Amino acid sequence: MSSCWSGKGRFSNLNCLIHPRSVALVGASSNKLKIGGIMWSYLQSFPGRKHPVNIKQETIDGVKAYGRVSDIPEEVDLVVIAVPARNVPSVIDDCIKKGVKAVIVVSAGFGETGEEGRKLEDEIKSKLANTDMVLLGPNTLGVYVPGESLDTMFVLREKSRRPPDGPIAYVSQSGASASGFMDMAEYHQYGISAFVGLGNKLDVNENDMLEFFSNDDKTKVICMHIESFADGKRLLKLCRETTPRKPVVILKAGRTEAGARAAMLHTGSMAKPSQAMDGAFKQAGVVRANDLLELFDYSRILAYQKPMFGPNVVVVTSGGGYGVIATDYIEDRNVGGGLKMAELSLNSKKGLREKLPSFASVDNPIDLTGNVTDEMFDHVLKIVNKDENTDGILAFLLLQTPYTTDRLIEIAWWWFKNGEKPMVPCIIGGLYSEKVIRMLESRGMPVYPDIRRAVLSLRVLYERGRYLLKIRGKGEAR
Amino acid sequence: MSSCWSGKGRFSNLNCLIHPRSVALVGASSNKLKIGGIMWSYLQSFPGRKHPVNIKQETIDGVKAYGRVSDIPEEVDLVVIAVPARNVPSVIDDCIKKGVKAVIVVSAGFGETGEEGRKLEDEIKSKLANTDMVLLGPNTLGVYVPGESLDTMFVLREKSRRPPDGPIAYVSQSGASASGFMDMAEYHQYGISAFVGLGNKLDVNENDMLEFFSNDDKTKVICMHIESFADGKRLLKLCRETTPRKPVVILKAGRTEAGARAAMLHTGSMAKPSQAMDGAFKQAGVVRANDLLELFDYSRILAYQKPMFGPNVVVVTSGGGYGVIATDYIEDRNVGGGLKMAELSLNSKKGLREKLPSFASVDNPIDLTGNVTDEMFDHVLKIVNKDENTDGILAFLLLQTPYTTDRLIEIAWWWFKNGEKPMVPCIIGGLYSEKVIRMLESRGMPVYPDIRRAVLSLRVLYERGRYLLKIRGKGEAR
Repeated sequence: MSSCWSGKGRFSNLNCLIHPRSVALVGASSNKLKIGGIMWSYLQSFPGRKHPVNIKQETIDGVKAYGRVSDIPEEVDLVVIAVPARNVPSVIDDCIKKGVKAVIVVSAGFGETGEEGRKLEDEIKSKLANTDMVLLGPNTLGVYVPGESLDTMFVLREKSRRPPDGPIAYVSQSGASASGFMDMAEYHQYGISAFVGLGNKLDVNENDMLEFFSNDDKTKVICMHIESFADGKRLLKLCRETTPRKPVVILKAGRTEAGARAAMLHTGSMAKPSQAMDGAFKQAGVVRANDLLELFDYSRILAYQKPMFGPNVVVVTSGGGYGVIATDYIEDRNVGGGLKMAELSLNSKKGLREKLPSFASVDNPIDLTGNVTDEMFDHVLKIVNKDENTDGILAFLLLQTPYTTDRLIEIAWWWFKNGEKPMVPCIIGGLYSEKVIRMLESRGMPVYPDIRRAVLSLRVLYERGRYLLKIRGKGEAR
Repeated sequence: MSSCWSGKGRFSNLNCLIHPRSVALVGASSNKLKIGGIMWSYLQSFPGRKHPVNIKQETIDGVKAYGRVSDIPEEVDLVVIAVPARNVPSVIDDCIKKGVKAVIVVSAGFGETGEEGRKLEDEIKSKLANTDMVLLGPNTLGVYVPGESLDTMFVLREKSRRPPDGPIAYVSQSGASASGFMDMAEYHQYGISAFVGLGNKLDVNENDMLEFFSNDDKTKVICMHIESFADGKRLLKLCRETTPRKPVVILKAGRTEAGARAAMLHTGSMAKPSQAMDGAFKQAGVVRANDLLELFDYSRILAYQKPMFGPNVVVVTSGGGYGVIATDYIEDRNVGGGLKMAELSLNSKKGLREKLPSFASVDNPIDLTGNVTDEMFDHVLKIVNKDENTDGILAFLLLQTPYTTDRLIEIAWWWFKNGEKPMVPCIIGGLYSEKVIRMLESRGMPVYPDIRRAVLSLRVLYERGRYLLKIRGKGEAR
């Protein structure tokens, strides 16, 4: 990406927002109880050059501080601004003068608070009109880029942990929920290529970031939580261009009239109920999420599992009761969305019979019963991966049965990674199950503690496969 | 309940199934690797008299073993049978001869395995025809009654933990999923009055247990996971009799055609798709669950929170993004089921304004922003609890904000317990959030890590309130 730094124009400057070589923090402080103090300390993990800017202090934590950005005696790619709102316009002037590529305005007190704040925004906007400098925010957490050890977020790491490096770009218009989302992501070892908080979207918006991550090789899936569209038509166009190469998952909050009103109160942006756009999004190959957990589940399964090129699901279980509930959800159009229970080939059934006890069911759902052993489970996964009528697998890993061992977990992991067919694992239980789920998640295997979430994730893999077949001109998936 | 023991007939004998004074285990073993060994060791926690029955051994773990139940020189309320299926009929004969009140047949190998097993079931059934002795199973985990320290389950406690004592009766036709459910229940400190595994329902069925728990003072909510109806009409009648006094939550798996087929394969019982019965169940005041997590969530919220006597929800949040998503779900009929966003009274808005910063929103959703303090949160809950237009509260507890402390958790707990209006709390996050959720759950406060689950739980409280108003002749809730 280094070529981007030397380039000119918006795209190159967006690259400096995510991959800066040097960073300055305006409002840096030695006081760790202040936002500028927290941010300065978190900036220390960034390996590039970093400069504190503070009009009153000579040094910050022993490092020479500059009174203004333009006093810094070298190029500055990214400036993070955390001073009171009324002081921001003059800092922007100084950044433009200095030739800064990107700024992040963390400060609140702009359009979200009323008329006076909106005037400040207009003032900044007019300053940006004659420059390529990009501005993220105001009223934003900024960015977190684990691969660069770049963290501009002022939320305390003890309270809001940071997720690991990974393949998912996460863009959000809502700061608080992004902080909760990333804390959850860390717990489940959901890896991100970057987080970008859009804040009030005065300049940089979801379309900029979608275009950027669309062209970012590290990013395999883009997920976005937005409350208003900067330009809905352009968003759809960008989605159409991106989705053939990488999945895009969008949570557009404010679907309903009341939700759109709440979004307007929240962000100050115009927001319209977006239910009407469902069809257009679907056509553009976008996966829709209704809440944060769906955003999380769908982006994760798309990042770590192959698409499903047909609707036929085999359910492998050792608890018959789980199999029945899963069957209901798969065949319920509101949840399964067109998924079907696969009809196993006679050959597969014969193969299953060979190593399963007589009372196990070799019909779908395949029920290995409480007598399941590690070997039986492995045998079944081998056969269904070869079965010509099967497109995807829902596998219940029951950790409570007496004759299975920890090897069951390794078997599931092996087939998840190496199987021909996409597999979604479901584990229901308590303390031990939670530990196993965490362990598998740390390897990048999504595990669902809930049957509905597992079926919805299979549905998303199927939607992805169907879309790919369609745009490749291979017609509808069977 | 002691009067029941001296009584005669089915109800009294069911009482001996759950509250026996003495228990015998046929097939008890000293070998802890055998099912009869595991069960005998778990039976040791039962404080009443217990007798091992083993045709080959003189003693089991140093306790005198009897060759037959009829050899035991005192009354036996409950006999648990864990010998091969073919030996069960003669044990049943012996139990009838002895005047045993209740038996549990843990052994598998009956109707669920084919023709031969069905013949064995017919043989046992004819033996039961001329007696009041009740039989649970065969092919069941039996019962677990924490209040009596009675545990007949052979699933290992290390793999499948047991939930604590509490107000919810849990009846299940599926053994494996019951084992997962209880493991999950232990993790979340969901307390049960009793678990009853129905198994093949040769004799005792869901209707018997519903009637029993309907009359059990300790049980505040009854939840049942069934795959086939022993007698659908009678079930509806019992539900109509029970629901005015205590909530009944039913997961009927096999809703769809394919699901019903899977249920038949699983249990061997006739199962019909049950979607058609939705209306009748609703009329009878039954809360329907689609999966185990819904069964868990709905029974728990009904056990620990008051009904909601109108549709109007106030959302209290410090993250605007959460508020918008919650609003969408509340107003989305498919999720909210008729819930509405409350319009706060002018008086309430004035009261809120007094202690909230100018940029906080006093419209619903009430957004306290990242500047929220413990006191603000407390103030808001005080006001919405008094608000005349509010029927229920969805409260987001954001643990990532900088100015809140652990006291926030205590404030939420206080209002959950003492508020006039039902409140459902939602916490989204990672490691610290999980710890806080566990802590609150151990006090009996359900906490949701997912907005959809929280809204669905409010919906269930509202359905309950609406039903109570209807049957009390107060007409529809507003």
